[in-house]
Amino acid sequence: MNKNKKNLTELNRVEALIKKDFSKEETISGLYKYIFKSNGKKIRAKLCLVASSKTNYKERIKLASVIELLHTATLIHDDVVDNSPTRRGVKSVNNLWTNSHGVLIGDYIYSKAFIYLVDIGNKKILKELANTTNDIAQGELIQLDAIKNVDVNLKKLEKISYFKTGRLFEAAAKTGAIISNENNTFISNISECAKNLGILFQITDDLLDYSDNKKIGKPVFQDIKEGKITYPFFYAYKNANIKQKKYLKELLGVSKRIQSKDIELIKSLEGIKKTTQLADKYHQRAVEYAKKIKNLDIREEMIELANTALNRDK
Amino acid sequence: MNKNKKNLTELNRVEALIKKDFSKEETISGLYKYIFKSNGKKIRAKLCLVASSKTNYKERIKLASVIELLHTATLIHDDVVDNSPTRRGVKSVNNLWTNSHGVLIGDYIYSKAFIYLVDIGNKKILKELANTTNDIAQGELIQLDAIKNVDVNLKKLEKISYFKTGRLFEAAAKTGAIISNENNTFISNISECAKNLGILFQITDDLLDYSDNKKIGKPVFQDIKEGKITYPFFYAYKNANIKQKKYLKELLGVSKRIQSKDIELIKSLEGIKKTTQLADKYHQRAVEYAKKIKNLDIREEMIELANTALNRDK
Repeated sequence: MNKNKKNLTELNRVEALIKKDFSKEETISGLYKYIFKSNGKKIRAKLCLVASSKTNYKERIKLASVIELLHTATLIHDDVVDNSPTRRGVKSVNNLWTNSHGVLIGDYIYSKAFIYLVDIGNKKILKELANTTNDIAQGELIQLDAIKNVDVNLKKLEKISYFKTGRLFEAAAKTGAIISNENNTFISNISECAKNLGILFQITDDLLDYSDNKKIGKPVFQDIKEGKITYPFFYAYKNANIKQKKYLKELLGVSKRIQSKDIELIKSLEGIKKTTQLADKYHQRAVEYAKKIKNLDIREEMIELANTALNRDK
Repeated sequence: MNKNKKNLTELNRVEALIKKDFSKEETISGLYKYIFKSNGKKIRAKLCLVASSKTNYKERIKLASVIELLHTATLIHDDVVDNSPTRRGVKSVNNLWTNSHGVLIGDYIYSKAFIYLVDIGNKKILKELANTTNDIAQGELIQLDAIKNVDVNLKKLEKISYFKTGRLFEAAAKTGAIISNENNTFISNISECAKNLGILFQITDDLLDYSDNKKIGKPVFQDIKEGKITYPFFYAYKNANIKQKKYLKELLGVSKRIQSKDIELIKSLEGIKKTTQLADKYHQRAVEYAKKIKNLDIREEMIELANTALNRDK
């Protein structure tokens, strides 16, 4: 079987395992099925499978499923927090049902991930993923409290990107390498590569929110409407004069339609250009760590993932 | 040291461990401190300590802390779901901060519990508590979908009480007994005792919501306002005539003030009497299982806890 085909088959097995529902309650399995009907990109599951690809342990599939379950739980809670109307191109749980359903089915999926994790029974992996879940919640809380705060600095923005996104990328690769009994050098290189790849992924996500692109399956200009300061706004604000600063500040957290002149202003103040440069920096770091990986197949796949994260249009 | 003094000292150690915060972020530790400033009854931690009281393992305190952390996380998410303004006599997180803060700090506390659990490193305990967390979420979801459903049957109400409350009582005792290396008979007896005690605790909680009691530290008549059908309403509705049924149905989920004549109606239709009888039944079951426990100290403490749950006024 060639490499791409093997990856696809494995991702299908991950999907099948995720879709296996526990609950005998119709109301819960209805919600659950709805959530997993629309498939995500599964980039985190893929990372885990790539990092563990030298072995063929059955538990790899379960671990990759755990990673996707944890990711999905955070997405559902995020949608409640952000009051998002859509997710993966369809209505979000909080929109189609209620916020309460979002909170509780998120908890259901979190704990399901931990049930699978206990089945796997590897203490190092359990520890890494319990810590990761805690860090993700911290990242989201830090972001929540940075809302409308134009004085936020780059270091804090990078910390948010790491905690809320990079951390699970890192853990996916790290636990994949652990389950595959890799040596510490490999574990460290692939974890660092995945961490930087995850931050890159978040940066391009922020960029996509400032593009007028129908492909991404979610509304654009959401961050600014929610009062979230992401990189494009951050850099533009830094370069703005007093009058422009005042104008930009007033855009934050306002539900009115963002106009194309607003985006043009952010562009003219180098918000997009500087963010693209930051993305390049993280891409370069990810590639550097990938190049330290001795296994050529894994190295190549990691570089491919980093390139995809840099150039993605959805 | 006498028994009561030992219990108190141990509960203080549980409290100290719970209050130890992980986050270096001010915004998170502020939230965290607020949550654990007002102390709960810690009946679940106590159950765990009683069930493990034959040994003196240090990990008992950590396990009891995990149980309280899990319980607190569910409370915070519940308050978001129910839109509760207060908790433990002070403003709830969702009220003083926002629903978003409630969702995320709940996730933070859940994952903190799992970090401690991984430290303890007992697979059986991990499994029991991952399953319990999943069952609690299921219980809450089932309850959510039974809102305003006057056709709900007693079996479903009992399932809700078990999943959302009895399950963690059961797990607290069970994991306490497991960490103390008790035999299967003891584990089974104390688990069943605690399970019934937990359901009893939920029934008396439902009763307290129908009493006009200032002590309980939370608003009364909330269930009916939220459209939740609990035992007093269930029994009253069953005994009501067509006109009364229509009247009772219209009370559900209405934000207007519940009048004393509404409570009188529920009383006259035996809603309180029948619920009290149900509480007696679960109390009796809890005591029956307690009596099967050979260790006299533990037996006595479990009976005392069951009596307290039956007669509690807050």
